[in-house]
Amino acid sequence: MRLIKSIPQMIKYAKAVQKKGKVIGLVPTMGFLHAGHLSLIDIAKRSCDIVVVSIFVNPTQFGPKEDFKKYPRNLARDLKLLRRMGVDIVFCPSAQEMYPKGFQTKITVPKLAKKLCGISRPHHFAGVVTVVLKLFNIVLPDIAVFGEKDYQQQLIIKQMAVDLNLDVKILTGKIVRERNGLAMSSRNKYLSNLNQERAARLYAALSFGKKLAEQGEKSPEHLRRSILAHLKGKQINIEYCEVLNADTLESLPRLKGKVLIALAARIDGVRLIDNIVVSLGRT
Amino acid sequence: MRLIKSIPQMIKYAKAVQKKGKVIGLVPTMGFLHAGHLSLIDIAKRSCDIVVVSIFVNPTQFGPKEDFKKYPRNLARDLKLLRRMGVDIVFCPSAQEMYPKGFQTKITVPKLAKKLCGISRPHHFAGVVTVVLKLFNIVLPDIAVFGEKDYQQQLIIKQMAVDLNLDVKILTGKIVRERNGLAMSSRNKYLSNLNQERAARLYAALSFGKKLAEQGEKSPEHLRRSILAHLKGKQINIEYCEVLNADTLESLPRLKGKVLIALAARIDGVRLIDNIVVSLGRT
Repeated sequence: MRLIKSIPQMIKYAKAVQKKGKVIGLVPTMGFLHAGHLSLIDIAKRSCDIVVVSIFVNPTQFGPKEDFKKYPRNLARDLKLLRRMGVDIVFCPSAQEMYPKGFQTKITVPKLAKKLCGISRPHHFAGVVTVVLKLFNIVLPDIAVFGEKDYQQQLIIKQMAVDLNLDVKILTGKIVRERNGLAMSSRNKYLSNLNQERAARLYAALSFGKKLAEQGEKSPEHLRRSILAHLKGKQINIEYCEVLNADTLESLPRLKGKVLIALAARIDGVRLIDNIVVSLGRT
Repeated sequence: MRLIKSIPQMIKYAKAVQKKGKVIGLVPTMGFLHAGHLSLIDIAKRSCDIVVVSIFVNPTQFGPKEDFKKYPRNLARDLKLLRRMGVDIVFCPSAQEMYPKGFQTKITVPKLAKKLCGISRPHHFAGVVTVVLKLFNIVLPDIAVFGEKDYQQQLIIKQMAVDLNLDVKILTGKIVRERNGLAMSSRNKYLSNLNQERAARLYAALSFGKKLAEQGEKSPEHLRRSILAHLKGKQINIEYCEVLNADTLESLPRLKGKVLIALAARIDGVRLIDNIVVSLGRT
């Protein structure tokens, strides 16, 4: 496994590998890896010759009052995990090299980015999409893998790839959960054991919602309210609970087709997201 | 010479050529070609194995009240000129294929794009940059050539290329002028002969400004006013006349270094732009 820190070196390596006709897979991460990330790396390994994992805590996707500074980091531990996974390249650029003086270009996917997390984090997805496109242009992947916990993010990145005619296939990996159901996240580290148990209620509520939909509930608003009722009095501060068309993030007049149930909540001040997709009939 | 209209076909061709190690040059145009365009093709021919000229009147870079519909088009004539130039590929995608249903991604280069033409055309450069990045991803050029008449545009595209780590070298071609000094533009077609003579005053004023700067004028504001006085009473409606740092488009406290003098004006309702760059000493 090779650790590359410089952008020109990464480009040089990627071009050389590309020239040999090898399939490059990229798993972009912010480090502090957990089983969710590792499952994405597994997906990349299965379909690519060369797997590149990037570790970059991207400052531009954090708001001014968010947790950029305290976001958990542990490169030594990450490298150990990645070596064990048989990753080929770990790409860790510096923020100075990614965003040199004069940097100003921004990519937005406005319709998808204004929903869900985009309401409380209005600049978040522009930061994500811009850094992802930079990583694509540096690592030259044929395939890139993103997690479905960040459901809106993977949708936005897929849209960007189509809109900009990128030659990158976007794959996604299912949410990996703790035994209690809590979706894996680097931010779970911020939670006490008690709060991790509380946080697991989010998934319980989503699963409850899924069951209701599968059992024939047709009203998105009723479903929303049932899920919210399920979470009441659990010291969970709901930011949003939405039931939407899973492809477009548009509201649904009635529950049918591929439905996304998505939640964002704060527990002890820690912001968590989770979601579940329900495939219903066409009527 | 081959005419390609479909995006997948263009990508397929570009990939095949790229695989053979050939250098691809792209000259993006909106058609209705004139000697300015041809000079850019010349530049591409000198440094590339394969020259692709795109012809696409890009709707997203026109404002709602601008001349998208009446923008001059003459594909048959363009193709004849391009064949004579020895161009390899003419790429003419449709707007439907470039912007399919659901399209929404937008690229902005906000600091550079808010100056000069960006004031009266607030969405213009987002349209330009987005279509240029799409063309880059479709044609896979090693080199792309832009004209210096659109001075701000080439600066913005260079910044985008650096910011997004694009592997495309941006070259520029000098402004080509009519015998009377008028900068070549497809929009000159809108002007009567008399108004073409009037329009030539813009270049005369820029040249006058350049001379003043070279003769020692140190105040950007004095220079600006002298140029404006030079244009007074010529039935020219000035939109802006700016004297700026030619690399950053920032205002200058005093004239030194590489200075851009840029003009936008309307003559008989036709919007024209022109500019001149003056290289002065460091003090």
